[in-house]
Amino acid sequence: MPLHLLREIDNLKKEILTLGSMAEQAVQRATAAIETCDGRLAQEVIENDVTLDEMEVQIEEDCLKTLALHQPVAVDLRFIVAVLKINGDLERVGDLAVNVAERAVFLAAQPSVDVVFDFQTMAEKAQGMLRRSLDSLVNLNAEQARGVILSDDEIDAMNRRVYQIVQEAIHIHPDHAESLLHMLSAARHLERIADHATNIAEDVIYMIEGVIVRHKAEDYLLQRLHA
Amino acid sequence: MPLHLLREIDNLKKEILTLGSMAEQAVQRATAAIETCDGRLAQEVIENDVTLDEMEVQIEEDCLKTLALHQPVAVDLRFIVAVLKINGDLERVGDLAVNVAERAVFLAAQPSVDVVFDFQTMAEKAQGMLRRSLDSLVNLNAEQARGVILSDDEIDAMNRRVYQIVQEAIHIHPDHAESLLHMLSAARHLERIADHATNIAEDVIYMIEGVIVRHKAEDYLLQRLHA
Repeated sequence: MPLHLLREIDNLKKEILTLGSMAEQAVQRATAAIETCDGRLAQEVIENDVTLDEMEVQIEEDCLKTLALHQPVAVDLRFIVAVLKINGDLERVGDLAVNVAERAVFLAAQPSVDVVFDFQTMAEKAQGMLRRSLDSLVNLNAEQARGVILSDDEIDAMNRRVYQIVQEAIHIHPDHAESLLHMLSAARHLERIADHATNIAEDVIYMIEGVIVRHKAEDYLLQRLHA
Repeated sequence: MPLHLLREIDNLKKEILTLGSMAEQAVQRATAAIETCDGRLAQEVIENDVTLDEMEVQIEEDCLKTLALHQPVAVDLRFIVAVLKINGDLERVGDLAVNVAERAVFLAAQPSVDVVFDFQTMAEKAQGMLRRSLDSLVNLNAEQARGVILSDDEIDAMNRRVYQIVQEAIHIHPDHAESLLHMLSAARHLERIADHATNIAEDVIYMIEGVIVRHKAEDYLLQRLHA
Protein backbone atom coordinates (compact mmCIF):
# COMPACT_ATOMS: atom_id res chain seq x y z
CA MET A 1 0.00 0.00 0.00
CA PRO A 2 1.39 3.46 -0.83
CA LEU A 3 2.59 5.28 2.28
CA HIS A 4 0.14 8.18 1.84
CA LEU A 5 -2.83 5.84 1.64
CA LEU A 6 -1.58 3.90 4.65
CA ARG A 7 -1.48 7.14 6.61
CA GLU A 8 -4.96 8.16 5.50
CA ILE A 9 -6.43 4.78 6.40
CA ASP A 10 -4.76 4.93 9.79
CA ASN A 11 -6.18 8.39 10.35
CA LEU A 12 -9.71 7.24 9.38
CA LYS A 13 -9.44 4.34 11.81
CA LYS A 14 -8.45 6.71 14.64
CA GLU A 15 -11.26 9.10 13.78
CA ILE A 16 -13.98 6.45 13.66
CA LEU A 17 -12.81 4.99 16.97
CA THR A 18 -12.88 8.46 18.53
CA LEU A 19 -16.45 8.92 17.31
CA GLY A 20 -17.23 5.43 18.65
CA SER A 21 -15.97 6.37 22.14
CA MET A 22 -17.96 9.59 22.03
CA ALA A 23 -21.14 7.70 21.10
CA GLU A 24 -20.50 5.05 23.75
CA GLN A 25 -20.04 7.70 26.41
CA ALA A 26 -23.19 9.54 25.34
CA VAL A 27 -25.24 6.33 25.69
CA GLN A 28 -23.64 5.52 29.04
CA ARG A 29 -24.38 8.99 30.43
CA ALA A 30 -27.92 9.16 29.04
CA THR A 31 -28.88 5.81 30.60
CA ALA A 32 -27.20 6.83 33.91
CA ALA A 33 -29.32 10.00 33.81
CA ILE A 34 -32.48 7.87 33.51
CA GLU A 35 -31.40 5.53 36.30
CA THR A 36 -30.41 8.31 38.75
CA CYS A 37 -33.09 10.85 37.66
CA ASP A 38 -30.28 13.30 36.90
CA GLY A 39 -31.70 16.05 34.67
CA ARG A 40 -28.43 17.98 34.57
CA LEU A 41 -26.40 15.04 33.31
CA ALA A 42 -29.11 14.47 30.66
CA GLN A 43 -28.85 18.11 29.61
CA GLU A 44 -25.08 17.72 29.15
CA VAL A 45 -25.60 14.76 26.82
CA ILE A 46 -28.03 16.82 24.73
CA GLU A 47 -25.67 19.80 24.51
CA ASN A 48 -22.65 17.65 23.68
CA ASP A 49 -24.28 16.05 20.61
CA VAL A 50 -23.08 18.86 18.37
CA THR A 51 -19.48 17.63 18.79
CA LEU A 52 -20.50 14.16 17.53
CA ASP A 53 -22.27 15.76 14.56
CA GLU A 54 -19.16 17.76 13.66
CA MET A 55 -16.97 14.68 13.95
CA GLU A 56 -19.30 12.74 11.63
CA VAL A 57 -19.12 15.43 8.95
CA GLN A 58 -15.32 15.53 9.29
CA ILE A 59 -15.02 11.75 8.88
CA GLU A 60 -17.25 11.71 5.81
CA GLU A 61 -15.21 14.45 4.19
CA ASP A 62 -11.98 12.58 4.97
CA CYS A 63 -13.39 9.35 3.45
CA LEU A 64 -14.34 11.18 0.28
CA LYS A 65 -10.95 12.86 0.06
CA THR A 66 -9.18 9.52 0.48
CA LEU A 67 -11.34 7.89 -2.20
CA ALA A 68 -10.71 10.72 -4.64
CA LEU A 69 -7.00 11.18 -4.04
CA HIS A 70 -5.82 7.60 -3.60
CA GLN A 71 -8.42 5.59 -5.52
CA PRO A 72 -8.03 2.58 -3.24
CA VAL A 73 -9.15 -0.90 -4.31
CA ALA A 74 -9.90 -4.27 -2.69
CA VAL A 75 -9.61 -4.34 1.10
CA ASP A 76 -8.78 -0.61 1.37
CA LEU A 77 -11.86 0.32 -0.62
CA ARG A 78 -13.99 -1.95 1.55
CA PHE A 79 -12.49 -0.38 4.66
CA ILE A 80 -13.40 3.14 3.56
CA VAL A 81 -16.94 2.18 2.55
CA ALA A 82 -17.35 0.43 5.91
CA VAL A 83 -16.12 3.56 7.72
CA LEU A 84 -18.64 5.66 5.76
CA LYS A 85 -21.46 3.40 6.91
CA ILE A 86 -20.27 2.96 10.51
CA ASN A 87 -19.92 6.75 10.68
CA GLY A 88 -23.62 7.13 9.90
CA ASP A 89 -24.54 4.49 12.48
CA LEU A 90 -22.50 6.16 15.22
CA GLU A 91 -24.02 9.54 14.52
CA ARG A 92 -27.48 7.95 14.84
CA VAL A 93 -26.42 6.30 18.12
CA GLY A 94 -25.52 9.81 19.36
CA ASP A 95 -28.98 11.06 18.33
CA LEU A 96 -30.62 8.14 20.15
CA ALA A 97 -28.58 8.92 23.28
CA VAL A 98 -30.02 12.44 23.02
CA ASN A 99 -33.53 10.93 22.73
CA VAL A 100 -32.90 8.87 25.89
CA ALA A 101 -31.51 11.98 27.63
CA GLU A 102 -34.66 13.94 26.68
CA ARG A 103 -36.76 11.27 28.40
CA ALA A 104 -34.48 11.55 31.43
CA VAL A 105 -35.04 15.33 31.54
CA PHE A 106 -38.79 14.74 31.54
CA LEU A 107 -38.73 11.91 34.08
CA ALA A 108 -36.41 13.82 36.45
CA ALA A 109 -39.03 16.57 36.68
CA GLN A 110 -41.89 14.17 37.54
CA PRO A 111 -42.94 12.69 40.86
CA SER A 112 -41.13 9.38 40.83
CA VAL A 113 -42.91 6.39 39.30
CA ASP A 114 -41.80 2.82 39.98
CA VAL A 115 -39.61 1.54 37.16
CA VAL A 116 -41.71 -1.39 36.11
CA PHE A 117 -39.07 -3.21 34.10
CA ASP A 118 -35.33 -3.82 34.30
CA PHE A 119 -34.10 -0.78 32.40
CA GLN A 120 -30.57 -1.17 33.72
CA THR A 121 -30.07 -4.68 32.33
CA MET A 122 -31.41 -3.58 28.96
CA ALA A 123 -29.12 -0.54 28.99
CA GLU A 124 -26.10 -2.68 29.88
CA LYS A 125 -26.92 -5.11 27.08
CA ALA A 126 -27.22 -2.34 24.48
CA GLN A 127 -24.01 -0.67 25.68
CA GLY A 128 -22.21 -4.02 25.71
CA MET A 129 -23.23 -4.68 22.09
CA LEU A 130 -22.03 -1.24 21.03
CA ARG A 131 -18.70 -1.71 22.82
CA ARG A 132 -18.16 -5.18 21.36
CA SER A 133 -19.02 -3.98 17.84
CA LEU A 134 -16.35 -1.27 18.19
CA ASP A 135 -13.89 -3.77 19.67
CA SER A 136 -14.49 -6.05 16.68
CA LEU A 137 -13.59 -3.09 14.46
CA VAL A 138 -10.37 -2.31 16.41
CA ASN A 139 -9.32 -5.96 16.47
CA LEU A 140 -10.71 -6.76 13.00
CA ASN A 141 -12.34 -9.74 14.71
CA ALA A 142 -15.16 -11.24 12.65
CA GLU A 143 -16.04 -13.82 15.34
CA GLN A 144 -16.63 -11.07 17.87
CA ALA A 145 -18.76 -9.21 15.32
CA ARG A 146 -20.85 -12.36 14.76
CA GLY A 147 -21.46 -12.57 18.51
CA VAL A 148 -22.89 -9.02 18.45
CA ILE A 149 -25.30 -9.92 15.65
CA LEU A 150 -26.56 -12.94 17.59
CA SER A 151 -27.15 -10.78 20.72
CA ASP A 152 -29.62 -8.62 18.85
CA ASP A 153 -32.43 -11.14 19.28
CA GLU A 154 -32.09 -11.01 23.07
CA ILE A 155 -32.59 -7.28 23.19
CA ASP A 156 -35.51 -7.49 20.75
CA ALA A 157 -37.13 -10.04 23.06
CA MET A 158 -36.51 -7.78 26.08
CA ASN A 159 -38.12 -4.89 24.23
CA ARG A 160 -41.22 -6.97 23.48
CA ARG A 161 -41.52 -7.92 27.17
CA VAL A 162 -41.19 -4.24 28.15
CA TYR A 163 -44.17 -3.47 25.92
CA GLN A 164 -46.23 -6.07 27.72
CA ILE A 165 -45.13 -4.92 31.20
CA VAL A 166 -45.75 -1.22 30.50
CA GLN A 167 -49.15 -1.99 29.07
CA GLU A 168 -50.15 -3.92 32.21
CA ALA A 169 -48.75 -1.17 34.46
CA ILE A 170 -50.81 1.46 32.60
CA HIS A 171 -53.85 -0.71 33.07
CA ILE A 172 -53.34 -0.70 36.84
CA HIS A 173 -52.17 2.96 37.10
CA PRO A 174 -53.65 4.94 34.19
CA ASP A 175 -52.58 8.13 36.00
CA HIS A 176 -48.93 7.10 35.50
CA ALA A 177 -49.47 6.68 31.74
CA GLU A 178 -47.32 9.65 30.74
CA SER A 179 -44.21 8.60 32.71
CA LEU A 180 -44.68 4.98 31.66
CA LEU A 181 -44.86 5.97 27.98
CA HIS A 182 -41.60 7.90 28.41
CA MET A 183 -39.97 4.80 29.96
CA LEU A 184 -41.28 2.69 27.08
CA SER A 185 -39.83 5.17 24.66
CA ALA A 186 -36.41 5.06 26.36
CA ALA A 187 -36.44 1.25 26.09
CA ARG A 188 -37.15 1.48 22.37
CA HIS A 189 -34.27 3.86 21.88
CA LEU A 190 -32.00 1.29 23.55
CA GLU A 191 -33.30 -1.35 21.18
CA ARG A 192 -32.45 0.89 18.22
CA ILE A 193 -28.96 1.53 19.62
CA ALA A 194 -28.50 -2.25 19.64
CA ASP A 195 -29.69 -2.31 15.99
CA HIS A 196 -26.96 0.14 15.05
CA ALA A 197 -24.37 -1.98 16.92
CA THR A 198 -25.60 -4.89 14.78
CA ASN A 199 -25.17 -2.82 11.61
CA ILE A 200 -21.61 -1.96 12.67
CA ALA A 201 -20.83 -5.63 13.32
CA GLU A 202 -22.18 -6.52 9.85
CA ASP A 203 -19.94 -3.90 8.27
CA VAL A 204 -16.92 -5.20 10.18
CA ILE A 205 -17.56 -8.72 8.83
CA TYR A 206 -17.99 -7.30 5.36
CA MET A 207 -14.74 -5.40 5.67
CA ILE A 208 -12.83 -8.46 6.81
CA GLU A 209 -14.39 -11.13 4.65
CA GLY A 210 -15.93 -9.24 1.77
CA VAL A 211 -19.25 -10.96 2.46
CA ILE A 212 -22.46 -9.02 2.96
CA VAL A 213 -24.10 -10.71 5.97
CA ARG A 214 -27.16 -8.49 6.15
CA HIS A 215 -30.40 -10.40 5.86
CA LYS A 216 -28.55 -13.71 6.10
CA ALA A 217 -30.21 -16.47 8.05
CA GLU A 218 -29.04 -16.85 11.62
CA ASP A 219 -28.29 -20.50 11.00
CA TYR A 220 -25.47 -19.43 8.77
CA LEU A 221 -24.03 -17.17 11.46
CA LEU A 222 -24.33 -19.85 14.14
CA GLN A 223 -22.66 -22.31 11.81
CA ARG A 224 -19.74 -19.96 11.28
CA LEU A 225 -19.49 -19.18 14.99
CA HIS A 226 -19.22 -22.85 15.88
CA ALA A 227 -17.15 -23.87 12.88
CA MET B 1 -16.84 10.69 -18.54
CA PRO B 2 -15.67 7.37 -20.00
CA LEU B 3 -18.50 5.46 -21.66
CA HIS B 4 -18.25 2.48 -19.29
CA LEU B 5 -18.52 4.68 -16.22
CA LEU B 6 -21.45 6.55 -17.77
CA ARG B 7 -23.23 3.24 -18.27
CA GLU B 8 -22.52 2.09 -14.70
CA ILE B 9 -23.75 5.37 -13.22
CA ASP B 10 -26.88 5.15 -15.32
CA ASN B 11 -27.45 1.60 -14.12
CA LEU B 12 -26.99 2.63 -10.45
CA LYS B 13 -29.50 5.44 -10.91
CA LYS B 14 -32.05 3.00 -12.35
CA GLU B 15 -31.45 0.51 -9.55
CA ILE B 16 -31.80 3.04 -6.72
CA LEU B 17 -35.00 4.41 -8.25
CA THR B 18 -36.40 0.89 -8.51
CA LEU B 19 -35.62 0.30 -4.84
CA GLY B 20 -37.19 3.69 -4.09
CA SER B 21 -40.44 2.67 -5.81
CA MET B 22 -40.44 -0.64 -3.96
CA ALA B 23 -39.99 1.14 -0.61
CA GLU B 24 -42.67 3.71 -1.47
CA GLN B 25 -45.12 0.97 -2.38
CA ALA B 26 -44.36 -0.97 0.83
CA VAL B 27 -45.13 2.13 2.93
CA GLN B 28 -48.28 2.87 0.95
CA ARG B 29 -49.59 -0.69 1.36
CA ALA B 30 -48.64 -0.96 5.05
CA THR B 31 -50.46 2.27 5.94
CA ALA B 32 -53.47 1.21 3.82
CA ALA B 33 -53.49 -2.05 5.80
CA ILE B 34 -53.69 -0.06 9.07
CA GLU B 35 -56.44 2.20 7.74
CA THR B 36 -58.59 -0.61 6.34
CA CYS B 37 -57.73 -3.22 9.03
CA ASP B 38 -56.51 -5.51 6.22
CA GLY B 39 -54.37 -8.23 7.82
CA ARG B 40 -53.78 -10.00 4.49
CA LEU B 41 -52.40 -6.92 2.77
CA ALA B 42 -50.14 -6.37 5.81
CA GLN B 43 -48.89 -9.95 5.54
CA GLU B 44 -48.00 -9.37 1.87
CA VAL B 45 -45.88 -6.34 2.80
CA ILE B 46 -44.02 -8.44 5.38
CA GLU B 47 -43.36 -11.27 2.95
CA ASN B 48 -42.27 -8.96 0.16
CA ASP B 49 -39.52 -7.31 2.22
CA VAL B 50 -37.01 -9.97 1.19
CA THR B 51 -37.04 -8.59 -2.38
CA LEU B 52 -36.08 -5.13 -1.07
CA ASP B 53 -33.29 -6.67 0.99
CA GLU B 54 -31.93 -8.49 -2.06
CA MET B 55 -32.07 -5.32 -4.13
CA GLU B 56 -30.16 -3.40 -1.44
CA VAL B 57 -27.34 -5.98 -1.40
CA GLN B 58 -27.20 -5.90 -5.22
CA ILE B 59 -26.93 -2.10 -5.31
CA GLU B 60 -24.17 -2.04 -2.70
CA GLU B 61 -22.19 -4.61 -4.64
CA ASP B 62 -22.65 -2.62 -7.85
CA CYS B 63 -21.47 0.59 -6.13
CA LEU B 64 -18.35 -1.15 -4.87
CA LYS B 65 -17.64 -2.65 -8.27
CA THR B 66 -18.00 0.76 -9.94
CA LEU B 67 -15.69 2.39 -7.39
CA ALA B 68 -13.06 -0.31 -7.82
CA LEU B 69 -13.17 -0.61 -11.61
CA HIS B 70 -13.63 3.00 -12.68
CA GLN B 71 -12.15 4.95 -9.76
CA PRO B 72 -14.48 7.89 -10.33
CA VAL B 73 -13.74 11.34 -8.95
CA ALA B 74 -15.59 14.60 -8.27
CA VAL B 75 -19.31 14.54 -9.04
CA ASP B 76 -19.30 10.85 -10.05
CA LEU B 77 -17.68 9.84 -6.78
CA ARG B 78 -20.19 11.92 -4.83
CA PHE B 79 -23.02 10.29 -6.79
CA ILE B 80 -21.87 6.79 -5.90
CA VAL B 81 -21.36 7.62 -2.22
CA ALA B 82 -24.82 9.22 -2.16
CA VAL B 83 -26.32 6.06 -3.74
CA LEU B 84 -24.60 3.92 -1.07
CA LYS B 85 -26.19 6.01 1.67
CA ILE B 86 -29.63 6.36 0.05
CA ASN B 87 -29.58 2.58 -0.48
CA GLY B 88 -29.24 2.07 3.29
CA ASP B 89 -32.04 4.54 3.98
CA LEU B 90 -34.43 2.87 1.54
CA GLU B 91 -33.75 -0.56 3.01
CA ARG B 92 -34.59 0.86 6.47
CA VAL B 93 -37.77 2.41 5.06
CA GLY B 94 -38.72 -1.09 3.88
CA ASP B 95 -38.09 -2.45 7.38
CA LEU B 96 -40.22 0.31 8.89
CA ALA B 97 -43.02 -0.51 6.45
CA VAL B 98 -42.78 -4.08 7.77
CA ASN B 99 -43.01 -2.73 11.34
CA VAL B 100 -46.15 -0.77 10.40
CA ALA B 101 -47.56 -3.88 8.69
CA GLU B 102 -46.91 -5.94 11.84
CA ARG B 103 -48.99 -3.45 13.81
CA ALA B 104 -51.70 -3.74 11.17
CA VAL B 105 -51.73 -7.54 11.55
CA PHE B 106 -52.20 -7.12 15.29
CA LEU B 107 -54.85 -4.40 15.03
CA ALA B 108 -56.81 -6.29 12.35
CA ALA B 109 -57.24 -9.18 14.81
CA GLN B 110 -58.58 -6.93 17.62
CA PRO B 111 -62.06 -5.64 18.31
CA SER B 112 -61.96 -2.24 16.64
CA VAL B 113 -60.83 0.72 18.74
CA ASP B 114 -61.51 4.31 17.71
CA VAL B 115 -58.51 5.76 15.94
CA VAL B 116 -57.86 8.65 18.27
CA PHE B 117 -55.62 10.67 15.98
CA ASP B 118 -55.39 11.45 12.28
CA PHE B 119 -53.20 8.54 11.17
CA GLN B 120 -54.09 9.05 7.51
CA THR B 121 -52.82 12.63 7.34
CA MET B 122 -49.60 11.60 9.05
CA ALA B 123 -49.19 8.68 6.64
CA GLU B 124 -49.81 10.91 3.62
CA LYS B 125 -47.26 13.42 4.89
CA ALA B 126 -44.57 10.75 5.39
CA GLN B 127 -45.30 9.19 1.98
CA GLY B 128 -45.26 12.62 0.34
CA MET B 129 -41.83 13.37 1.83
CA LEU B 130 -40.47 10.03 0.64
CA ARG B 131 -41.86 10.58 -2.87
CA ARG B 132 -40.50 14.13 -3.08
CA SER B 133 -37.07 13.03 -1.83
CA LEU B 134 -36.94 10.44 -4.63
CA ASP B 135 -38.23 12.99 -7.16
CA SER B 136 -35.45 15.35 -6.09
CA LEU B 137 -33.01 12.53 -6.84
CA VAL B 138 -34.50 11.83 -10.30
CA ASN B 139 -34.60 15.52 -11.21
CA LEU B 140 -31.37 16.40 -9.36
CA ASN B 141 -33.40 19.22 -7.84
CA ALA B 142 -31.79 20.67 -4.72
CA GLU B 143 -34.68 23.10 -4.08
CA GLN B 144 -37.13 20.22 -3.94
CA ALA B 145 -34.78 18.37 -1.56
CA ARG B 146 -34.63 21.44 0.71
CA GLY B 147 -38.43 21.47 0.85
CA VAL B 148 -38.39 17.86 2.12
CA ILE B 149 -35.97 18.77 4.90
CA LEU B 150 -38.17 21.64 6.02
CA SER B 151 -41.25 19.34 6.13
CA ASP B 152 -39.60 17.13 8.73
CA ASP B 153 -40.48 19.51 11.57
CA GLU B 154 -44.18 19.23 10.76
CA ILE B 155 -44.20 15.47 11.08
CA ASP B 156 -42.15 15.65 14.30
CA ALA B 157 -44.77 18.04 15.72
CA MET B 158 -47.57 15.69 14.63
CA ASN B 159 -45.80 12.79 16.35
CA ARG B 160 -45.54 14.76 19.60
CA ARG B 161 -49.27 15.55 19.46
CA VAL B 162 -50.04 11.85 18.87
CA TYR B 163 -48.16 11.04 22.08
CA GLN B 164 -50.34 13.46 24.01
CA ILE B 165 -53.59 12.23 22.43
CA VAL B 166 -52.79 8.54 22.99
CA GLN B 167 -51.84 9.21 26.57
CA GLU B 168 -55.17 10.96 27.24
CA ALA B 169 -57.09 8.19 25.46
CA ILE B 170 -55.38 5.55 27.62
CA HIS B 171 -56.33 7.56 30.69
CA ILE B 172 -59.99 7.41 29.69
CA HIS B 173 -59.93 3.80 28.36
CA PRO B 174 -57.13 1.88 30.12
CA ASP B 175 -58.63 -1.33 28.69
CA HIS B 176 -57.75 -0.11 25.17
CA ALA B 177 -54.11 0.43 26.20
CA GLU B 178 -52.73 -2.39 24.05
CA SER B 179 -54.34 -1.29 20.78
CA LEU B 180 -53.53 2.35 21.51
CA LEU B 181 -49.86 1.51 22.10
CA HIS B 182 -49.78 -0.28 18.76
CA MET B 183 -51.26 2.80 17.07
CA LEU B 184 -48.67 4.98 18.82
CA SER B 185 -45.98 2.68 17.58
CA ALA B 186 -47.24 2.86 13.98
CA ALA B 187 -47.16 6.67 14.20
CA ARG B 188 -43.54 6.58 15.36
CA HIS B 189 -42.58 4.34 12.47
CA LEU B 190 -44.08 6.95 10.11
CA GLU B 191 -42.01 9.62 11.81
CA ARG B 192 -38.88 7.55 11.24
CA ILE B 193 -39.80 6.99 7.57
CA ALA B 194 -39.94 10.80 7.27
CA ASP B 195 -36.48 10.95 8.91
CA HIS B 196 -35.09 8.67 6.22
CA ALA B 197 -36.72 10.82 3.50
CA THR B 198 -34.89 13.76 5.11
CA ASN B 199 -31.60 11.85 5.00
CA ILE B 200 -32.17 11.10 1.30
CA ALA B 201 -32.89 14.78 0.60
CA GLU B 202 -29.67 15.75 2.40
CA ASP B 203 -27.70 13.31 0.27
CA VAL B 204 -29.27 14.67 -2.91
CA ILE B 205 -28.19 18.20 -1.96
CA TYR B 206 -24.72 16.92 -1.15
CA MET B 207 -24.52 15.15 -4.47
CA ILE B 208 -25.57 18.24 -6.41
CA GLU B 209 -23.75 20.93 -4.48
CA GLY B 210 -20.99 19.10 -2.66
CA VAL B 211 -22.21 20.66 0.59
CA ILE B 212 -22.97 18.56 3.65
CA VAL B 213 -26.23 20.03 4.97
CA ARG B 214 -26.68 17.65 7.89
CA HIS B 215 -26.87 19.44 11.21
CA LYS B 216 -27.04 22.81 9.43
CA ALA B 217 -29.33 25.43 10.90
CA GLU B 218 -32.74 25.70 9.33
CA ASP B 219 -32.22 29.42 8.82
CA TYR B 220 -29.64 28.57 6.22
CA LEU B 221 -32.02 26.25 4.40
CA LEU B 222 -34.83 28.79 4.48
CA GLN B 223 -32.44 31.43 3.20
CA ARG B 224 -31.46 29.24 0.26
CA LEU B 225 -35.07 28.32 -0.45
CA HIS B 226 -36.08 31.96 -0.70
CA ALA B 227 -32.89 33.20 -2.35
